[in-house]
Amino acid sequence: MSATSAESRAMQRARESSAMQRARELGAAVLGTTSPNPAVGAVVLAADGTPVGEGATRPPGGPHAEVVALAQAGERARGGTAVVTLEPCAHTGRTGPCADALIAAGIARVVVAVPEPTELAGGGADRLRAAGIEVELGVGQAEAEHGALAPWLTGVREHRPFVVWKVAATLDGRVAADDGTSRWITGEVARAAVHRLRATCDAVVVGSGTALTDDPQLTVRDADGRPSGHQPLRVVVDRRGRVPATARLHDDAAPTLVSRAGTPEALLAELFDRDVRRVLLEGGPTLAAAFLRAGLVDEAVVHLAPSLLGAGASLVGDLGISTMARALSFSIVDLLPLGGDVQIRLRPTRHTGGDQHADGGS
Amino acid sequence: MSATSAESRAMQRARESSAMQRARELGAAVLGTTSPNPAVGAVVLAADGTPVGEGATRPPGGPHAEVVALAQAGERARGGTAVVTLEPCAHTGRTGPCADALIAAGIARVVVAVPEPTELAGGGADRLRAAGIEVELGVGQAEAEHGALAPWLTGVREHRPFVVWKVAATLDGRVAADDGTSRWITGEVARAAVHRLRATCDAVVVGSGTALTDDPQLTVRDADGRPSGHQPLRVVVDRRGRVPATARLHDDAAPTLVSRAGTPEALLAELFDRDVRRVLLEGGPTLAAAFLRAGLVDEAVVHLAPSLLGAGASLVGDLGISTMARALSFSIVDLLPLGGDVQIRLRPTRHTGGDQHADGGS
Ligand SMILES: NC(=O)c1ccc[n+]([C@@H]2O[C@H](COP(=O)([O-])OP(=O)(O)OC[C@H]3O[C@@H](n4cnc5c(N)ncnc54)[C@H](OP(=O)(O)O)[C@@H]3O)[C@@H](O)[C@H]2O)c1
Ligand SMILES: NC(=O)c1ccc[n+]([C@@H]2O[C@H](COP(=O)([O-])OP(=O)(O)OC[C@H]3O[C@@H](n4cnc5c(N)ncnc54)[C@H](OP(=O)(O)O)[C@@H]3O)[C@@H](O)[C@H]2O)c1
Repeated sequence: MSATSAESRAMQRARESSAMQRARELGAAVLGTTSPNPAVGAVVLAADGTPVGEGATRPPGGPHAEVVALAQAGERARGGTAVVTLEPCAHTGRTGPCADALIAAGIARVVVAVPEPTELAGGGADRLRAAGIEVELGVGQAEAEHGALAPWLTGVREHRPFVVWKVAATLDGRVAADDGTSRWITGEVARAAVHRLRATCDAVVVGSGTALTDDPQLTVRDADGRPSGHQPLRVVVDRRGRVPATARLHDDAAPTLVSRAGTPEALLAELFDRDVRRVLLEGGPTLAAAFLRAGLVDEAVVHLAPSLLGAGASLVGDLGISTMARALSFSIVDLLPLGGDVQIRLRPTRHTGGDQHADGGS
Repeated sequence: MSATSAESRAMQRARESSAMQRARELGAAVLGTTSPNPAVGAVVLAADGTPVGEGATRPPGGPHAEVVALAQAGERARGGTAVVTLEPCAHTGRTGPCADALIAAGIARVVVAVPEPTELAGGGADRLRAAGIEVELGVGQAEAEHGALAPWLTGVREHRPFVVWKVAATLDGRVAADDGTSRWITGEVARAAVHRLRATCDAVVVGSGTALTDDPQLTVRDADGRPSGHQPLRVVVDRRGRVPATARLHDDAAPTLVSRAGTPEALLAELFDRDVRRVLLEGGPTLAAAFLRAGLVDEAVVHLAPSLLGAGASLVGDLGISTMARALSFSIVDLLPLGGDVQIRLRPTRHTGGDQHADGGS
């Protein structure tokens, strides 16, 4: 390979990698509106590498990401490259196969992050290659899998929704004061972030304890308190039917499900059947502990307020853990200031227990 | 003023401001080695603005920061500018007055962050001005006051040491598991940071509970476990004489004080009399709560591990607070990842109680 062609290859890779980053962002922006379909993002680059089309999965029944991006690109797609977070489908569902749309548009190369994991929709890459299109799979795969595709992939692999546990606590891990007051632990900026987080989910879940103590509305609202158009399903797990019909959860601002599911597994199965793929667990310490003990928390979003109470309910109930070496362990995905508070986003690590090094220490 | 002279004034300010930042760093680097004297930093700029000397307060009996910086600058100080975090002293203590040293070196301009607050050492700026030197006070004053000068200023203003409370906890605010195990909550990087923090303090304080449960050595050690040359005073507050002579605190690696002081105030008075100006409170939840209730925590350094226990001792004992609006409130000074853990540095805010806005929320 000559120096010049190596150079132009490197430039092409760089363009494709930034298009893939943009595709991930496009997918993330529609999270919460596509279930049971994956939140896919796509970018079309013209033959000269210029971005000429962008798209993301439309709500169920609408076109897929590639089709939206191709429509925007029009004739400029011919001879160009499609960069997509998920392998284009080959099956005819409610919309025609995306592979065929890419062939028809005259695309020359397709760059994919995550290979299609289902039999039904598989075969997209093969069909493209058979049409003479160059296909590269696995570009930025880990980022895409941990990003907007995670809920859908969890559904495919585990037949259950992805669970994000959100909790707001003081520095000493309290979610309420001794007298039961819990408003407000965090400031406005953090509370606005919770509304944006809700908007990325298909359902918001609390236990009966939270419904009874806080009487939350659990809708997505903007800074002025106006409800947004799209509202996730509100879910209260109330096995003994303690939550009254007068609870704010039962207003007509959004749909509500009262579940009597006996376990987190049963609840998630019920939600999965309703096409829920991403759940925000906003429940209190009791329900959160039940999910954590069952290994059913995929991501935690902790909002920490710089305050101390010294008493009051802890952010998580009994986990059945009595010794340090068995602590539930997470790794930090990101850390950011949120107004005067802090947001820590975490993922559970496979192993549990602290680090075992004997040096250092107090 | 002509455009050119305005420009050169702006350049001079920028040089002085970066010299002041460097002077603050020089002061911070000797924190823990200068008490009862202030940890001052100084930079000498030649007449053309080039830095030609740096200095920081030497241990008691040694030269002050300005004298060290002037010695390094030598003849290049003539006609130059001295940038110092604290107003140069005019009195003759164990060392001669710094004001006279600046005059003798032919310095033309002195830039100071914090005006000298004591009568005894005051008058430095006047003496310099009387010698025809231009003096500017208050440049970057807040940063310097909150930085390395804070312990000394607290001593001058409140006749007590500055208190840094350090605690390592899980995300749910636990400092030990249910069975009492507490090693290790945080990883090696965080534990190494604790040793560096100890080195900046004159004394490290624990309660008898921590001494009995953890039997810590409380020395400053490097990554290989080797003790550093300078060791802070180890202090255990043990009002009932429960800590045995065989405790590791009583080894010969560093001096140790067993205090029977009945209250945090009494303990701090005892330490102040021993020239302690910066205390690291590493005590357990009981002693930490006593300091917090007394309003005697000036800074908190919280190391949070991304783990959950669901049970075990909380990072702070009872604070006598029963409702959210009375939570002890802090503001975050900085936030940084520390290996797999997080460090949050905070300062108490004057007011207590959460934010009172009624909009937003759950
Ligand atoms: N700061 C925050 O982020 C935050 C968020 C939420 C709540 N909170 C606070 O938390 C407190 C409420 O705590 P909580 O623990 O009572 O609330 P919770 O966890 O929301 O509700 C607990 C209840 O959920 C029901 N539940 C349903 N399925 C369950 C399962 N599989 N396992 C266990 N329980 C299940 C149980 O009642 P049944 O047996 O009757 O079904 C249980 O009593 C309030 O003070 C509230 O302010 C704070
Ligand atoms: N993770 C961390 O950062 C960390 C740090 C330290 C300790 N810990 C954990 O904390 C636990 C020990 O907790 P603890 O609360 O017993 O320890 P502590 O706060 O260090 O010690 C408490 C004892 O200090 C004495 N004390 C002296 N002056 C006091 C005052 N003015 N007010 C209150 N008490 C005073 C009291 O005993 P007398 O009345 O007999 O004097 C009291 O029982 C251990 O599990 C340890 O591992 C964790």
